[in-house]
Amino acid sequence: MTCPWRALKEGLTRRRFLSSGLMAAAGTSLGGPCAFAALAPAQEKDVPSSIQGDATELFWGEHQGGILTPLQRNTYFAAFDLVAVERKDIVKMLQAWTAAAANMAKGLPASPLGDDGSVPAPDSGDAVGLPPSRLTLTFGFGAGLFIKEGQDRYGLAAQRPAALVDLPRFTGDQLIEARTGGDLSVQACADDPQVAFHAIRQLSRLAYGAAQIRWAQAGFTPDFKAGETPRNLMGFKDGTHNPSVNDSSLMNKLIWAGDEGPAWMRGGSYLVTRRIRIALEHWDRMNLAFQEQTVGRRKYSGAPLGGKDEFDKADYDATDKDGNPVIPENSHVRLASAAHNDGAQILRRPYSYNDGANFTAERWPPWRQEMEYDAGLFFFCYQRDPRTGFIKIFDKMSKFDMMNQFVTHTGGGLFACPGGIMEGDYIGQQLFEKA
Amino acid sequence: MTCPWRALKEGLTRRRFLSSGLMAAAGTSLGGPCAFAALAPAQEKDVPSSIQGDATELFWGEHQGGILTPLQRNTYFAAFDLVAVERKDIVKMLQAWTAAAANMAKGLPASPLGDDGSVPAPDSGDAVGLPPSRLTLTFGFGAGLFIKEGQDRYGLAAQRPAALVDLPRFTGDQLIEARTGGDLSVQACADDPQVAFHAIRQLSRLAYGAAQIRWAQAGFTPDFKAGETPRNLMGFKDGTHNPSVNDSSLMNKLIWAGDEGPAWMRGGSYLVTRRIRIALEHWDRMNLAFQEQTVGRRKYSGAPLGGKDEFDKADYDATDKDGNPVIPENSHVRLASAAHNDGAQILRRPYSYNDGANFTAERWPPWRQEMEYDAGLFFFCYQRDPRTGFIKIFDKMSKFDMMNQFVTHTGGGLFACPGGIMEGDYIGQQLFEKA
Repeated sequence: MTCPWRALKEGLTRRRFLSSGLMAAAGTSLGGPCAFAALAPAQEKDVPSSIQGDATELFWGEHQGGILTPLQRNTYFAAFDLVAVERKDIVKMLQAWTAAAANMAKGLPASPLGDDGSVPAPDSGDAVGLPPSRLTLTFGFGAGLFIKEGQDRYGLAAQRPAALVDLPRFTGDQLIEARTGGDLSVQACADDPQVAFHAIRQLSRLAYGAAQIRWAQAGFTPDFKAGETPRNLMGFKDGTHNPSVNDSSLMNKLIWAGDEGPAWMRGGSYLVTRRIRIALEHWDRMNLAFQEQTVGRRKYSGAPLGGKDEFDKADYDATDKDGNPVIPENSHVRLASAAHNDGAQILRRPYSYNDGANFTAERWPPWRQEMEYDAGLFFFCYQRDPRTGFIKIFDKMSKFDMMNQFVTHTGGGLFACPGGIMEGDYIGQQLFEKA
Repeated sequence: MTCPWRALKEGLTRRRFLSSGLMAAAGTSLGGPCAFAALAPAQEKDVPSSIQGDATELFWGEHQGGILTPLQRNTYFAAFDLVAVERKDIVKMLQAWTAAAANMAKGLPASPLGDDGSVPAPDSGDAVGLPPSRLTLTFGFGAGLFIKEGQDRYGLAAQRPAALVDLPRFTGDQLIEARTGGDLSVQACADDPQVAFHAIRQLSRLAYGAAQIRWAQAGFTPDFKAGETPRNLMGFKDGTHNPSVNDSSLMNKLIWAGDEGPAWMRGGSYLVTRRIRIALEHWDRMNLAFQEQTVGRRKYSGAPLGGKDEFDKADYDATDKDGNPVIPENSHVRLASAAHNDGAQILRRPYSYNDGANFTAERWPPWRQEMEYDAGLFFFCYQRDPRTGFIKIFDKMSKFDMMNQFVTHTGGGLFACPGGIMEGDYIGQQLFEKA
């Protein structure tokens, strides 16, 4: 008879496997050399999954997944520091990561499970029975891969793209070192928080001796219908004016790296992520009109001030009867708009995060002591070049955005996410083999 | 014409409201005195919600929701400390909490929204458009409501139930004060993380001047089918041997307080919650057989050792050919079982939590420095009396459970959750008005 885990190895998804007859067969006394012969027969359930978790996202392709992919419900992001001494150890890890990621994107364990219970299983098992949940894994390289403390540790310094700058210190930055930077990044996105975390956890195990987690953060979005713009924790729709991912020439112009940098970045993109605490306890005390002036949009409809519909074009020239702009000069949408940034645009994938609450003492009268939420925006954006993308846009926003009274950037990083992976290759192969 | 927010006030759910024609009507120039006449027409979408979010849980009733309720996907728990000087201020807050909770359970804003944008909106708006998501809010009273630092602050000391003991210090406890205790507790559970957090956030706003958050924690479960037992982050099914919530005489015996305590607790239950970090980075290095010995169950099927099916009765007397117990003496399931605790049983509602990763230096050779996940179990259990429930069971487990090598309790509390609320009453009314 077939060992049930062999069936799993051979391509059944986790959920299909558990509901297939193979497990029941394995429960009989016919079980031969398979160590899992005592596995229980699966209970067949008629109840459908509460989410459409069986959908998968393609792992192989010209571009990495998780960039243009419709936003999944959950994310788990990890930045890693390299401890590998030699380049070949990084390559080995990236090969293992690629194989594991391709498996997990299909809803399989990270590595084919052996039959030997006497060794640590190659997969921690917490996603067994869970559907693929549209898992994507998006890999990035930080500046530290190329040069760290002045050292070209892996002989890759010449391959550092000009666009992979050190992020400048922006006005108001309160970055915590333990939540900032990293030599490598992996963002897992999935419609299930356990599937996303499971994926990073397996990669972290595979990295043992070569890289270790520097910081990690979970994020989520609310339940929203396809095509709807989810609200963030400020209660406003977030992501309305994203460039259309269906416009491939626009994506080539704004998101995908072309021939301007090293060959290994062609078809890739630059990720800027920021962990942004929102002072929700203060925001909630502001009146609605002030909130809308701050954002430049109506709260409930998402329409730009002066407009009626979420997708109405913002009229930045409109003035009220006193001659004041309808959309305030320092409002968030005006400062972020392409119109006020020489056409600069980035692709946002905004998640929220929620890490509970902490004690704080206020820095201004009446010097109240209170709890503040450790919650806010876990911001991700992709762009062809951060110098003409996030850095250009945020430099001005960090100085003038009315919203800055309520938000504090406490961590993040910039990562060069290489082009997609063709089956049989591994992530970043062109960088490591041509350098 | 009708103001769209008035329609919302009058009982349409958030989602139905947004997809109803009222919003479109509001977008016309007919808009009379309604301040929201500029609201955009809703976009009708044919795509169904990815979760069955429209379902609601009853708020009013003999017992509070969130105890026997089938586990929702997400939780947000907050413990509050009272700062109210007088009992009447607590009563006022609990009245406001009850009204808000009843609204939110239906998918409505916490309080009817006014039309005046010049004042803070009574609802932060981040759940507008989201379905009710089976939200439940479960309220509890900690020892500090009755007596704190020796003071009977509110004249309620005589009403403290004998069962509301101070939790003993258990072997291995590493409780962080800032994550432990509290005078009041509220657990929000919902099939959407934003709906759960939104609910607590509105209650926290309503508590201003009377109570403030002491600690808060978000939790989640993976996607699982109705009737399936979800896996926790250790990769094992968690909750298999819960007493059946459909057996009302069993629930009366084990979960609901009867006449043994004060009248205000009749039909209520005692909550013990613990924030339990799991050393996943160590657990993942253990071999599968050792993990199964530790738990006393097979990892993939969930069957007790020696059994075949998840729901097989564990045979604690079975021995192997060498005379050793098939289910080890110090295994988790044996020590937790009713059979080894004089029949004691509790109702578990296990969530996981995931707060990223922290740096640690190990306390044993080879004194490795590394990152550890700040992730694990956010444990909730309900019982008729904690002295014969959690305390009895966990006292032994804290000393002998093999799993203790991998878990650390870092916070939690014990709360007396009163009986359910009848429409027109408020939570805990019997306590405050009869004391």
